[in-house]
Amino acid sequence: MRVDVNFTGQFWKGFIDKVVNYVIPYQWEAINDRIPGAEPSYSMHNFFVAAGKKEGKHGGFVYQDNDISKWIEAVAYSLSIKPDAELEALADDAIDTIVAAQEPDGYLNSYFILTGLEKRFTNLMENHELYCLGHFLEAAVAYYRTTGKKKLLNALIKYVDLVDATFGMEEGKLRGYPGHQEIEIALIKLYEVTNDEKHIKLAKYFIDERGKQPLYFKEEHEKHGNHYNWGNSSFGYGYYQAHKPVRQQEEPIGHAVRALYMYSAMADVAAKTSDSGLMDVCLRLWHIITRRQMYITGGVGTSWYGESFSLDYHLPNDTAYAETCASIALMFFAARMFKYNGYKAEYMDVLERALYNGVLSGMSVDGTSFFYVNPLEVLPEAVEKDPLKAHVKATRQKWFGCACCPPNIARVITSLDEYAYTTDGNRVYVNLFAESVVKTPKLEFNITTHYPWGNTITVDVQTAKPEAELAIRIPGWCENYTLSRTHTRVNGYVIIQDIAPGEKIVLELEMPVKIMEANPNVRVNIGKVAVCRGPLVYCLEEVDNGKNLHLVHLQNDAVFELFQDEELDMVCITTQGKRVCNISNELYMPVTDMVYEDVALTFVPYYLWANRTPGEMITWVQLSNH
Amino acid sequence: MRVDVNFTGQFWKGFIDKVVNYVIPYQWEAINDRIPGAEPSYSMHNFFVAAGKKEGKHGGFVYQDNDISKWIEAVAYSLSIKPDAELEALADDAIDTIVAAQEPDGYLNSYFILTGLEKRFTNLMENHELYCLGHFLEAAVAYYRTTGKKKLLNALIKYVDLVDATFGMEEGKLRGYPGHQEIEIALIKLYEVTNDEKHIKLAKYFIDERGKQPLYFKEEHEKHGNHYNWGNSSFGYGYYQAHKPVRQQEEPIGHAVRALYMYSAMADVAAKTSDSGLMDVCLRLWHIITRRQMYITGGVGTSWYGESFSLDYHLPNDTAYAETCASIALMFFAARMFKYNGYKAEYMDVLERALYNGVLSGMSVDGTSFFYVNPLEVLPEAVEKDPLKAHVKATRQKWFGCACCPPNIARVITSLDEYAYTTDGNRVYVNLFAESVVKTPKLEFNITTHYPWGNTITVDVQTAKPEAELAIRIPGWCENYTLSRTHTRVNGYVIIQDIAPGEKIVLELEMPVKIMEANPNVRVNIGKVAVCRGPLVYCLEEVDNGKNLHLVHLQNDAVFELFQDEELDMVCITTQGKRVCNISNELYMPVTDMVYEDVALTFVPYYLWANRTPGEMITWVQLSNH
Repeated sequence: MRVDVNFTGQFWKGFIDKVVNYVIPYQWEAINDRIPGAEPSYSMHNFFVAAGKKEGKHGGFVYQDNDISKWIEAVAYSLSIKPDAELEALADDAIDTIVAAQEPDGYLNSYFILTGLEKRFTNLMENHELYCLGHFLEAAVAYYRTTGKKKLLNALIKYVDLVDATFGMEEGKLRGYPGHQEIEIALIKLYEVTNDEKHIKLAKYFIDERGKQPLYFKEEHEKHGNHYNWGNSSFGYGYYQAHKPVRQQEEPIGHAVRALYMYSAMADVAAKTSDSGLMDVCLRLWHIITRRQMYITGGVGTSWYGESFSLDYHLPNDTAYAETCASIALMFFAARMFKYNGYKAEYMDVLERALYNGVLSGMSVDGTSFFYVNPLEVLPEAVEKDPLKAHVKATRQKWFGCACCPPNIARVITSLDEYAYTTDGNRVYVNLFAESVVKTPKLEFNITTHYPWGNTITVDVQTAKPEAELAIRIPGWCENYTLSRTHTRVNGYVIIQDIAPGEKIVLELEMPVKIMEANPNVRVNIGKVAVCRGPLVYCLEEVDNGKNLHLVHLQNDAVFELFQDEELDMVCITTQGKRVCNISNELYMPVTDMVYEDVALTFVPYYLWANRTPGEMITWVQLSNH
Repeated sequence: MRVDVNFTGQFWKGFIDKVVNYVIPYQWEAINDRIPGAEPSYSMHNFFVAAGKKEGKHGGFVYQDNDISKWIEAVAYSLSIKPDAELEALADDAIDTIVAAQEPDGYLNSYFILTGLEKRFTNLMENHELYCLGHFLEAAVAYYRTTGKKKLLNALIKYVDLVDATFGMEEGKLRGYPGHQEIEIALIKLYEVTNDEKHIKLAKYFIDERGKQPLYFKEEHEKHGNHYNWGNSSFGYGYYQAHKPVRQQEEPIGHAVRALYMYSAMADVAAKTSDSGLMDVCLRLWHIITRRQMYITGGVGTSWYGESFSLDYHLPNDTAYAETCASIALMFFAARMFKYNGYKAEYMDVLERALYNGVLSGMSVDGTSFFYVNPLEVLPEAVEKDPLKAHVKATRQKWFGCACCPPNIARVITSLDEYAYTTDGNRVYVNLFAESVVKTPKLEFNITTHYPWGNTITVDVQTAKPEAELAIRIPGWCENYTLSRTHTRVNGYVIIQDIAPGEKIVLELEMPVKIMEANPNVRVNIGKVAVCRGPLVYCLEEVDNGKNLHLVHLQNDAVFELFQDEELDMVCITTQGKRVCNISNELYMPVTDMVYEDVALTFVPYYLWANRTPGEMITWVQLSNH
């Protein structure tokens, strides 16, 4: 059950305000093609034309409908945080236009409405129709939950009926499934508001049918002469996770966002249909991804080619892909695994790692520029000259033609309440730490904290039913904590019972600066360490530490100091390190002892990198033996 | 002046015999499309059709003529080593067919003769016409030098006359130059047999005109509507080293083989025209390439994209390109810089490094399979699954559609005498060490050695004029040596005078196993070392050392033993190392001391890798601190 949360304090309130006040209005301009110098979205344009309100042709990619749908979803969350009649009117108008474009049989996709309906559903593998429907469904459900308005929802339920009549196991239906998974997650959300078994059944069908022989995608592209993009790749249909039935998929493969959206829906379906075999697959995939294929920032999908998973422990820092959307998708998967597998803190540890590092890094501090790719090491000259790093940018970009990441960040930040708190019976789980006012039927409380900069979490209980329980996560990074009252500890959470109204509960998390290492099988990080504090991974930037950051060495016994930086409103970490200073002119020479000089180092949170003068950045720093 | 050399001993005699007895006959089959399962060459086929001796169409790439021309060049060297009437007859027949295809005006290129002469010289940037002529010229000069036969040479001089009448500064001529440099080197070789100033003048024109504004290539592709492949790359026309005039080229850029062929010709022209400004450019480029952009194996051109140079100290081991032909081209450049810049050993040190490592690695021990790409680290699973390593192969291939490397290796090995010995006045330089019988007008001697396995070089002098001098290179890798008689030392060579006929001169080079490190600016090699002995770089292979070679650590004080391996006829190096053995299941954790187990290690020469069971290979090994 959704919890009533009002974020009040600086860190998350700041992000939410940024999204509500800047990002959502900015994105409205973007999807109406009014950002000078940015690639046009065409998203509203296409619906105006499809609805007969404007002359013109379809513009942009086949999946351009997503820009407006993700915006509506973010608006829905935004309105739940801060009512805004003007914004709601904008969204209502947009919904009117979208629904006006719907075909009589329920079909609603501006690309095929404008370019030829005879081609609809002839290239599920590449044409993103069911993906677009999925995002529209998520928007419609969110908008209905916030505003009570059903116009978009009802229009889409009609479209889902068409999809359900078209695809399925039954005689006469096509045995298809989406090329980009998303609708599966969305159908579960739809089911949660409709309670119509048809909706979960359709989600389950898409999951169960995927990858079965004869392969639908192969038959489809052969029948319609569609291009098969990945025939020469090592993953082939695995790009779409369709190389074999999902229950036989022993390892993550292919496009990371597709994969993680699907794994999330698999967990949903497994839980809601009590399918332990399917949940076992999710557990195995979770284990491999988070123990062998995840950057320390929570980035996943290491390879630019196919935006894909690659192989265990292959986590290159400088050619990383680590798409912002993939980290968001990992959060989705984590949140579901948490809910369906005993509320274990380890799932929220991964969610927190991704959120505070690989997701937040996707957006600039002013909320107007974005990273699609999140490398852990950048040498600007190499990005410019080495074609293997052509996908890496040293500075955030204004908008993308394929603008999946910016609205995805917006909707995650505006729906933070979903991740921060979970209720289960009498118990309220506090998963993330944010200043907020929380109201549940059994328990109302305020949280005060300066997390992630501060390490104290204070819970002021307002009301509490006698049976109410509070479960507060002790993060995996925290080795010692003190809690002001009696409790038990289960699955990484402290469980507090017999809560008195008016009670103040204080949790202190030991939050030292830690020098972390990677598993020795991560070849590129051998001999290197990362500096972390609390949930945050830190990095070195040229603006603070000069060029040639690869020459910097950190000592195992380094003494760290914290420093409040006003410019970026962050806590920096300073220490003394070593820098190699006897650089020979020779390229190869008999091994000698390095000569080092002392050097003052300033580490900044990874998610804040590239917000000042652009330059080099490294996350993994050489460990000195001197 | 060319020296009369007869190689007699095992190491080089073995390679030469392999090329003469297996590689050249194998390549004859290949260029006649008779190797089952290999990509066809079409090289002779095209000339048969062009000469009207066969029906058919042109097959293969626009530069397919090179397969036969490089073969003829290798045959010429082979015949100088071992006369073979049957082989010479094959070459004569091939030359008859080639010359029969020549147009009345001298033009001779099977592609345009067969596909339309109206398109000749309309796409110098991409169509390799002058490149093909260059390789034919080199073949013709070599064939004439060995056999005295002028048929091919005269035909090509006529073609050069046509080129000279077509391109140049003079009114009415096109201001073009080749897209793939090669003809510049060849024209110098032609000049050395013709003494016709026209030939060196044309080479100089091609070098001087290159990259001048307005840019010929730009005008050409705009005029003829040719595709410009590199417009979106960071190097642009720099791919062809045509982005600016060559004298302004401050750093190596673009396609490495093109670049190094050009730098070689620049050195020739600078020396032969006493152009010190041009030689300064060569010296600067030499310095950057060999001090900042060369693998320890002598591999150059690190980037798969454009087979190109990238940036200083960017020497990735696992995504290396390091084309065999680029190392051969580096040898060409080194040999010229040596001859024109005071006979300094440093040039021969680089030549030796490339030859014994990055060139020899290009061919299997049986002479029938070849590497185009020479990585310094291979994980077969990564080669298969990581698209950034799609160009890397874990095993040598039979033949390539673009077969530049196999015949290039063949011609280098059969012309080893050019590099091993140089005469200058009264002095004979011994640059490389190979068992051989050497005859010059002033000095005749035999060399006995087991180099590179053994460290003793014995010179038995047969005849010596009183003024004769012998200069023997002390390799850069050798810190101490003993020489059996008085000498002086100049530029890394010991100079021996007053040589008596019958005298035995014995040089002992200290040849310990050395642990080498890279400049700390080579990011990927920080904390790693390479094992070398004499001119050879060694590596670890899975077949000897098991999987997960990245977990192996070598100690700074390791004690090495030498071991004669009969299977590959090599000297292996064995030692005790450490292997990380406490591999956690965690991906990230607070830094701890590693736990190591002792492990026996066997290093094999890099050039011999992938001649046994395929598997992992690493050249740069972690240095242990324990």
